[in-house]
Amino acid sequence: MEINIPEVRAELAAAFDVYERALVKNDVTALDALFLNSAETIRYGGAENLYGYNQIATFRAARSPIGLARRLERTVITTYGREFGVASTLFRRETAPGRVGRQMQTWVKTPAGWKVAAAHVSIIPDPEI
Amino acid sequence: MEINIPEVRAELAAAFDVYERALVKNDVTALDALFLNSAETIRYGGAENLYGYNQIATFRAARSPIGLARRLERTVITTYGREFGVASTLFRRETAPGRVGRQMQTWVKTPAGWKVAAAHVSIIPDPEI
Repeated sequence: MEINIPEVRAELAAAFDVYERALVKNDVTALDALFLNSAETIRYGGAENLYGYNQIATFRAARSPIGLARRLERTVITTYGREFGVASTLFRRETAPGRVGRQMQTWVKTPAGWKVAAAHVSIIPDPEI
Repeated sequence: MEINIPEVRAELAAAFDVYERALVKNDVTALDALFLNSAETIRYGGAENLYGYNQIATFRAARSPIGLARRLERTVITTYGREFGVASTLFRRETAPGRVGRQMQTWVKTPAGWKVAAAHVSIIPDPEI
């Protein structure tokens, strides 16, 4: 299993960028399309635990689009083989000084492109302060 | 890419159980052996962001063994193909009433067995209360 085959990693990095742009715009259709449509897909969010694609889509449809802008830090995208990868990033919001977010996504490559099979977002007091 | 091939999922479930037993005992040697020894391995913990196997091992060596007992809930282990999987679980500690932990791990199968390539642990107020 080869780590970070360049063209595979480039594909996943591009998918990650699409996701990030959709997130800060709260483009729910785009976000839904980037998650794996499966009962096994899980998203642990900042304040909620969502099991299955349907719960995740319901959460997104109801989410406020306010205050989603953020700055990424220490983003690491790593692929394992040709169909699997992890994207991890810290993020900060101007509205939350002294706190740092962590987002970790596991992506799988499907015939319809790269999809998030599992995600976990949390926000903690900044350990570097 | 086949999801949850029975014998593959059984292998990962067994590795997950070994990890859980090592965690609550704070068996640092066993925990270290279950993480992928790679600069790309990341662990976002309850209060720290660790990049690379060495940072993770240093954290574990210094961690207090007190209060690690926990009860798991809603554990989901899903494999994608034969070499990748995700293990997600909620957990609760008697010492933290009203709060729920979330642990998500991405595992990869190596010649030396299944290893955690990425992990994210966070604790939030219980959204079900």
